[in-house]
Amino acid sequence: MITFDAQEFLRIGAAIYDRRDQIESMADAAVARGFDNIVLCSVGGSQAMMDPFATIIRRLSSVPVVQVLAPLYTTGGHPEVTSRSLVIMASKSGDTTETVAAAKALQKLGAPIFSVVGVDGSPLQALSDWCFVYGDGRPQELVLYLFVGALLHRLGSFEAYPRFADQLRNLPAALVDVRQTFDARAIDYCERFNADPYNIWVASGELWPVAYAYAMCVLEESLWLRTKSVMSSEFFHGTLELVERDTCVTLLVGEGATRPLDLRVKDFIERYTDNAVVIDMADFALAGFDAEFRWMLGPVVANAALQRISKNMEHINQHPLETRRYYRKVAY
Amino acid sequence: MITFDAQEFLRIGAAIYDRRDQIESMADAAVARGFDNIVLCSVGGSQAMMDPFATIIRRLSSVPVVQVLAPLYTTGGHPEVTSRSLVIMASKSGDTTETVAAAKALQKLGAPIFSVVGVDGSPLQALSDWCFVYGDGRPQELVLYLFVGALLHRLGSFEAYPRFADQLRNLPAALVDVRQTFDARAIDYCERFNADPYNIWVASGELWPVAYAYAMCVLEESLWLRTKSVMSSEFFHGTLELVERDTCVTLLVGEGATRPLDLRVKDFIERYTDNAVVIDMADFALAGFDAEFRWMLGPVVANAALQRISKNMEHINQHPLETRRYYRKVAY
Repeated sequence: MITFDAQEFLRIGAAIYDRRDQIESMADAAVARGFDNIVLCSVGGSQAMMDPFATIIRRLSSVPVVQVLAPLYTTGGHPEVTSRSLVIMASKSGDTTETVAAAKALQKLGAPIFSVVGVDGSPLQALSDWCFVYGDGRPQELVLYLFVGALLHRLGSFEAYPRFADQLRNLPAALVDVRQTFDARAIDYCERFNADPYNIWVASGELWPVAYAYAMCVLEESLWLRTKSVMSSEFFHGTLELVERDTCVTLLVGEGATRPLDLRVKDFIERYTDNAVVIDMADFALAGFDAEFRWMLGPVVANAALQRISKNMEHINQHPLETRRYYRKVAY
Repeated sequence: MITFDAQEFLRIGAAIYDRRDQIESMADAAVARGFDNIVLCSVGGSQAMMDPFATIIRRLSSVPVVQVLAPLYTTGGHPEVTSRSLVIMASKSGDTTETVAAAKALQKLGAPIFSVVGVDGSPLQALSDWCFVYGDGRPQELVLYLFVGALLHRLGSFEAYPRFADQLRNLPAALVDVRQTFDARAIDYCERFNADPYNIWVASGELWPVAYAYAMCVLEESLWLRTKSVMSSEFFHGTLELVERDTCVTLLVGEGATRPLDLRVKDFIERYTDNAVVIDMADFALAGFDAEFRWMLGPVVANAALQRISKNMEHINQHPLETRRYYRKVAY
């Protein structure tokens, strides 16, 4: 397998999981302070990393959730974001301009901020009430499974959280297995579609932000491949008409409540294009997890599988994932 | 001008405006019944027609708004949608499968429904507490400017509503002028980009749903042209890397709070592609409207301008807007 080190994945997974106590203490502190709603506020790939948790919180509790992109908050505000909101923010660098600007406005408002940041000593950390610096730990979502899970548990929802949190110890190994299982399919995908003029990506519910961000932040930004991403529920209201026998349509099928919407797309694309690619989360083993938790893991499972497409595409197209035309190269 | 009849546009505009009393009575009845939040629930182009009103309500009041696609509601529910929600739904045919299914679930829940429907005697009408049937009246949004405006006014927000509602009498003529003003640019657009392999569409705030739906429901569904639509605030987090000197990027610039985000995209695309198309709502006259109301009209102004692209593209590409491969032709 190209660009793959199983031991390293286990190490960087444990690097987060081993600090479970620290994350749960931050959740305790947030609950102790009290809040009326949870606000997910960042931008780009970091927002998309958090957005599945809106679906998860809504399924597991009645705590209201507001999703607001940082630059939209900064320019227009949001009436449901108040000093009684618990704001969750994320930024790999911790210095994303739009997110830092929103954090400043939120701090001024008096809303407490919990942030998930890759780099120690960042501006976002300085603006946060609680900040978890994951460094080279991965996946970032593991921080939120623990923080959000503990939060809901303390509030009397998600009774099964302690069992889920114990099983999260198995996540790094489960994701290594996903990568190994999916690699042959990823290579086949890259060989078939690496020169396609355009790819359609479809998903729903907790997997929609994954498809959206993979298309935008990896295929477009890192591999310069053209995409259209569309929700399973919206696919039948326009985009379907573009499907011809040679159109590449990639579908992520989740195990959550919206699975029937994904399966409807599956039936359609398997009938009308020879280039339908269906990645079904139900096909992965996820050893060490009870069935009831599988749907929540969809985002990290999908990302682990898709990472194999990124790594193989980088190799096949001889296009380094780090090459940029504009990002951090020119001012805008 | 191809496929254009100014008198007919004035007639179908008045066909809605002349029933202003009826719409405001429905708003009175909804307020009399009482509600804790407003829920916008439909699918596809109809959802996108309603979504700008989430932004409008949030700017003008503190009434909480929930946007939930009908099929997502039906499969997964939403904890903030209760019998104390006022649900607004829309469907041109009134028989959109996903919307009717959600309306049934919402009726069972006991949530009152106000619907905006094109066809008299539809299933959605039968499930609604209040239904406005617009028939051949256009634009549909005029119903919501009046309904939502009256609603907020009755609740003590949007003090200027009576003046805005009076000025809405001028909307049909203002939109005829938009079409006439924009037609030459629309023809130029179609001649330059009708054979492009791919078009990027960008907008934000109250105009984002317009760009999203125009790309999906017109360019993709009706003209079989490939698109990527992306919010102005998200453009810099991936899609920008696809911009080359010959990439067509079309930007809608609004007059609302998020205008600075649009202008940032404008600066970028005007520097890095020769095919930047900027449609600025501030360039249209909108005679008969006070400046403070202009931003709210952005969605109908943009749609009137874009309709000239549709009509000219239909002619230039000899592709009738009604032709479908799948929609209502095969079962799925």
